[in-house]
Amino acid sequence: MSEFRVVGKSLPQIDALQKAIGETRYVSDITLPRMLYGRILRSPYPHARIRNIDVSRAEALPGVKSVITYADTPAVRFGPRSEDWTILANTKAIFEGDEIAAVAAVDEDVAEEALELITVDYEPIPGVFDPLDAMAPDAPLVHDDKPGNIAAEFSIQAGDVDDALKRSHFVYEARYFTNQVYQAYLEPMGAVAQTDISGRLTLWVGTQIPNMMRMSYAKALSMAPEDIRIVVPDYGGAFGAKMENNSHLVAAVLARKSGRPVKVINPRQDDFLAGNPRVPMYIDIKLGVDSDGILTGKDVKIVGGNGARTVYGPAIVSTACYRVDSLYRFKHVRAKGYTVYTNTIPTGCFRGFGNSQSTFALESSLDAIAEELSMDPIELRMKNAIGPNEVSVHGWKIGSNGLRECMTRAAESAQWSEKRSQKKPFRGIGLACCNHVSGNRAFAREFDGGSGIIRVGRDGRVTLYHGESDMGQGQKTAFAQIAAEKLGISLEQIEVAVVDTDVSPFGLGSFATRGTTIGGNGVLSAATEAFRQLAGVAADMLEANEDDIVAANGKFFVKGSPEKYILFKEVANQASTSRGGAPLIAVGSYIPPTQLPDPVTKYGNISPAYPFGCHIAEVEVDPETGEITVVNFVAAHDVGRAINPMATEGQIEGGVVQGLGWTLMEKMVVENGHLVNPSFLDYEIPGPLDVPKITPLLIESIEPEGPYGAKGIGEPALNPSMAAITNAIYNATGVRILALPVTAEKLLSELHKLSANK
Amino acid sequence: MSEFRVVGKSLPQIDALQKAIGETRYVSDITLPRMLYGRILRSPYPHARIRNIDVSRAEALPGVKSVITYADTPAVRFGPRSEDWTILANTKAIFEGDEIAAVAAVDEDVAEEALELITVDYEPIPGVFDPLDAMAPDAPLVHDDKPGNIAAEFSIQAGDVDDALKRSHFVYEARYFTNQVYQAYLEPMGAVAQTDISGRLTLWVGTQIPNMMRMSYAKALSMAPEDIRIVVPDYGGAFGAKMENNSHLVAAVLARKSGRPVKVINPRQDDFLAGNPRVPMYIDIKLGVDSDGILTGKDVKIVGGNGARTVYGPAIVSTACYRVDSLYRFKHVRAKGYTVYTNTIPTGCFRGFGNSQSTFALESSLDAIAEELSMDPIELRMKNAIGPNEVSVHGWKIGSNGLRECMTRAAESAQWSEKRSQKKPFRGIGLACCNHVSGNRAFAREFDGGSGIIRVGRDGRVTLYHGESDMGQGQKTAFAQIAAEKLGISLEQIEVAVVDTDVSPFGLGSFATRGTTIGGNGVLSAATEAFRQLAGVAADMLEANEDDIVAANGKFFVKGSPEKYILFKEVANQASTSRGGAPLIAVGSYIPPTQLPDPVTKYGNISPAYPFGCHIAEVEVDPETGEITVVNFVAAHDVGRAINPMATEGQIEGGVVQGLGWTLMEKMVVENGHLVNPSFLDYEIPGPLDVPKITPLLIESIEPEGPYGAKGIGEPALNPSMAAITNAIYNATGVRILALPVTAEKLLSELHKLSANK
Repeated sequence: MSEFRVVGKSLPQIDALQKAIGETRYVSDITLPRMLYGRILRSPYPHARIRNIDVSRAEALPGVKSVITYADTPAVRFGPRSEDWTILANTKAIFEGDEIAAVAAVDEDVAEEALELITVDYEPIPGVFDPLDAMAPDAPLVHDDKPGNIAAEFSIQAGDVDDALKRSHFVYEARYFTNQVYQAYLEPMGAVAQTDISGRLTLWVGTQIPNMMRMSYAKALSMAPEDIRIVVPDYGGAFGAKMENNSHLVAAVLARKSGRPVKVINPRQDDFLAGNPRVPMYIDIKLGVDSDGILTGKDVKIVGGNGARTVYGPAIVSTACYRVDSLYRFKHVRAKGYTVYTNTIPTGCFRGFGNSQSTFALESSLDAIAEELSMDPIELRMKNAIGPNEVSVHGWKIGSNGLRECMTRAAESAQWSEKRSQKKPFRGIGLACCNHVSGNRAFAREFDGGSGIIRVGRDGRVTLYHGESDMGQGQKTAFAQIAAEKLGISLEQIEVAVVDTDVSPFGLGSFATRGTTIGGNGVLSAATEAFRQLAGVAADMLEANEDDIVAANGKFFVKGSPEKYILFKEVANQASTSRGGAPLIAVGSYIPPTQLPDPVTKYGNISPAYPFGCHIAEVEVDPETGEITVVNFVAAHDVGRAINPMATEGQIEGGVVQGLGWTLMEKMVVENGHLVNPSFLDYEIPGPLDVPKITPLLIESIEPEGPYGAKGIGEPALNPSMAAITNAIYNATGVRILALPVTAEKLLSELHKLSANK
Repeated sequence: MSEFRVVGKSLPQIDALQKAIGETRYVSDITLPRMLYGRILRSPYPHARIRNIDVSRAEALPGVKSVITYADTPAVRFGPRSEDWTILANTKAIFEGDEIAAVAAVDEDVAEEALELITVDYEPIPGVFDPLDAMAPDAPLVHDDKPGNIAAEFSIQAGDVDDALKRSHFVYEARYFTNQVYQAYLEPMGAVAQTDISGRLTLWVGTQIPNMMRMSYAKALSMAPEDIRIVVPDYGGAFGAKMENNSHLVAAVLARKSGRPVKVINPRQDDFLAGNPRVPMYIDIKLGVDSDGILTGKDVKIVGGNGARTVYGPAIVSTACYRVDSLYRFKHVRAKGYTVYTNTIPTGCFRGFGNSQSTFALESSLDAIAEELSMDPIELRMKNAIGPNEVSVHGWKIGSNGLRECMTRAAESAQWSEKRSQKKPFRGIGLACCNHVSGNRAFAREFDGGSGIIRVGRDGRVTLYHGESDMGQGQKTAFAQIAAEKLGISLEQIEVAVVDTDVSPFGLGSFATRGTTIGGNGVLSAATEAFRQLAGVAADMLEANEDDIVAANGKFFVKGSPEKYILFKEVANQASTSRGGAPLIAVGSYIPPTQLPDPVTKYGNISPAYPFGCHIAEVEVDPETGEITVVNFVAAHDVGRAINPMATEGQIEGGVVQGLGWTLMEKMVVENGHLVNPSFLDYEIPGPLDVPKITPLLIESIEPEGPYGAKGIGEPALNPSMAAITNAIYNATGVRILALPVTAEKLLSELHKLSANK
């Protein structure tokens, strides 16, 4: 039994009922008085000069209140990572879906009609659509000032890789390809924008990074950050995609020009065309091993598709280059990454942030090496796995680490040994591991940390303010559990305030699996301070020593004497009354013991805690059709401690399903820069019938740096899924497909080749 | 020249532009998705049994979503001061305008139509409409459980009044009557109510007392206070009236029943019928004086009309009984007050809160005494005026006191001596003084005090949270000036947050002229704490001693070295970054050095500071018509320090105009319980042509307890106006009219009597 009353309990999400009965107001549901509806005219060409835009007919349409083109936007270039964005295209369109013009009208139908009345004189020009093609010397340039279409290069090196590989017993070498997939959140991107008479802008927007967005949009709109207010209502999922997006800025410019609130919500097709899908990567890997199965060296070259402008592609490619190195006891590693412009949709973050791509490559490679060594894949990983309290090749200080237990427990649950030793035809079992971070010091130069504010009102009402972002993953509930535990009250007594940059603490946001660990520590710190203040008041009221005060079940009492208590709300009332009516406000913060990595070597401990995991997939293949069915899935994750086991299991299940979709089904089909399948009719994601039995296993290593021992789970939940499935397919068929997705057609074709070669 | 940069400056209100161009969204402007419009069916009878209410036809009307009667409300009695309220009438209507039933419909027209479809079977019964009649032994009872229709009695006594009067040179004796007047704010009462799925209620409502309202409404709605959120948007004036009102609760019940947001805004007629106009009072006064003009004793009996239920009538009558005693060096005083139920509109607070009524009586009486003694009215008052640092008969510790300077300066400005000595026919000049409080410890038993919260964001944005209420008097601007002064920034850099009981500190609210003094001290305390924290950060950055840090013009620097500075926003950024992104939050509070008065003797210092004032009116009377024209008005007020002279002068001018209306024009004409003139067509208030030249004089006595030396001005601005005008009329005509209003008809009739008697 846990010693805790709220933490570690499988409690329903605090907003579950509201969502279940349709009371939640998502961004799309926001309606303001006099609000207009905005729509964006997008380029039908992947690469075209814009000779002229005639908006006169659109402006003349009754009900149209504003039409904007580049001329209505500040003539600045901006972007979260590279200043290659404009709000609307100036002289050329650089991808199909590029924002050309926009309208705001009294209703959506009029806005739609107005788009058709805008005449754009395009001159299509040759484009480049694959990152490898884009690196060719004579490739068309996406941006004239970016020679070779290189958006960014990244290098990392530790030890002597060439020597290590030379001395290896065996070097495995392969090129993997991970395809571009869409995050498929339920609510498309968009925002409601309103300016007040002082010019101050409020954006209601579903974003993972409200505070960083504000700074980025301040530049885009030529405003001071303090003149922008970002409010984050409930929003319908993100999975990494909902960072900055031009649809928000278009809403802002339309609001500014029209003087009325404007809502721009992408129709689903627009969202497919101009969201921020996953960075596709070519991963060339060389992986050496000695005859005992000890990994000797790893050398990779990655080429990632940036799309036409930079979202977070370079950071994602760099992550792919080296994060996975800290999963094992590597000593000699080298990576070179290129993020390359193409005339395709700009690519961005998607659960895993590059680590999923390279985990697929590494864990597939290890499967091949284990076979070469005739070694059980688990044994191979057990030999190499990094342990607790070790320092990785890149200087990561691993704290708690349940990786080995993840493997052992997953193997038991999946009957690994039996299934491997008693293999049936066309049935196979595969395994993959992963590591990840719980926050990434490298993401924002200036700052890392988390904070929370707890307000205890005169009536005992507790409000928790944080600056992160709940995209539906359950962050609010986890935060409330952490605070409730510390304050000795129930979950229902805590209200988690909407993130609002005017009110909330500054938080970096939800990415890098940092929410629970860094944000949660900020919350815990605030709760600890609130408890300290309340305990002081309670001690006075109970005429006891402050250090002896205990809070539990909504009461304060002296340790050992629970029968003589005062209610939480009585203490709150006294705390306020004795301060002139001011609520008790406790501010707490957490500065993680991390380091900005060395600019050259990237050496440095970038995260306060590192989660690990192991997935085992069991598949069945139909040899006649190539159809692959995942029949069983076990996902063991070292989560430090599950603040809410039910929610943590939900995260794991979601990650597995998303990985399954990526591995077997999903693909954005681009032909000459044209997205063929921008709808859920043609872009297939897993439905209920595609989902196998998933057994999530929570390994609780109790991380010393985590709040109540917790580490992150958001991204690792997905990361090993792809390799686990493809390794299982190999185990079932002897076919190793290196390019995702592994469709039935692809597999059948390989099965035919295999039987032809026999 | 002031040593201050922001305090003491005549700066425009921070919300002036917004209001001027129509951008301010008042309560009436709030629109929520799916919002319904509520209307209240009111009793046409002042006293009637309700035999039956048939709402079936109203419910059947398309577009009607909810119809409520008493049965839909919690069967509780409640009320801010006496539990004699129900949200809707149960078995009888007790005044014309009493709330009988209500509807919520999709628009106002449907709601209006639905009201007409509700059939109420009334049995009219005899009523009682004048408080003196209501005290008669056989008078009909408004409430069966209130014998003699007595809502409350109040007694106070100090010294030996009978003896003092007996030993007097002269005892003046008279009965005054002060009429019932309507506060005539621009925006009628009302609220928008919304319940969420947990049953939690949000009320957007213009109220002076958001936090106390919440507790009162919790009882009315049988809810916990923490389940009610009160948000106070900008609202269109109050002048005391906007405390609790059933229209708000009707909105809440309609929202609860319909499951949709409901807006109830009183049509103007409803507001006249069921607002909270001024308590009418009969004031019997005996005032003794010795031959030197020293006041010997004061004995009063007051009968105040409570209307059909208790708003704040008893507190107002008790205030009328004794507040004015601390204006002079009284030693022997006695008062007896009765607050009496009648079948008329419930009466409530109106600028002055009873002190205006008794100031009229006292200052009129002093004018008569001065004449009896052949003494200049100023000399009489100078002899008796309480001085600075004196303790009054009721234990009030007077701090700064510019009363004598008020008289001197007003007399100079109005050319008092010349006008008195060189009197022209039918032209006269009159004077009256006043005292008041700046907060009243007696108002809420549990607590007095003020607090503020200052949040300095990472971007340097400063937000000030307070729990008081700006009804248009300029409180937000005064608070912002106090905070800006302390933080060394400009007014524009401070945002004053909307009062929201979920977010703001608990504040008692805007009444008893307490805002600037008690609320302002809370704000100053928060600003002082914010400065302390910022100075610490700045000291680190400047490598200086914290105590040497100065803030001015948006910069921090070391005293004496303004050339080496860091910007306010740089310090703010550093303060936040070094705390994990948490904003700097400073909580400050002010507990005034006041005492709960003794329950029997009422002895005790109830306010931290006491403002004083002197008005001089000059009038001209047309002997043919009795028409009275105020030709000049000088109003000198000891405000301690004017935080914003322009705003303070505005308050004074407004008070004078309101007093002028009360004295000469305004009257709610009630005939047998029926209000004859419930509209601005028939209820006349002063227009621009009625307003004389008003010269406000700011006497700055620099109150030690006040923020930057300030005291209150809201109520005293009005209090002496009535007597100043009637004393001037007496000076002009020799007619002293003891019952307000002094209409031309009344005066002409008295003039005729006078000339008949000559």
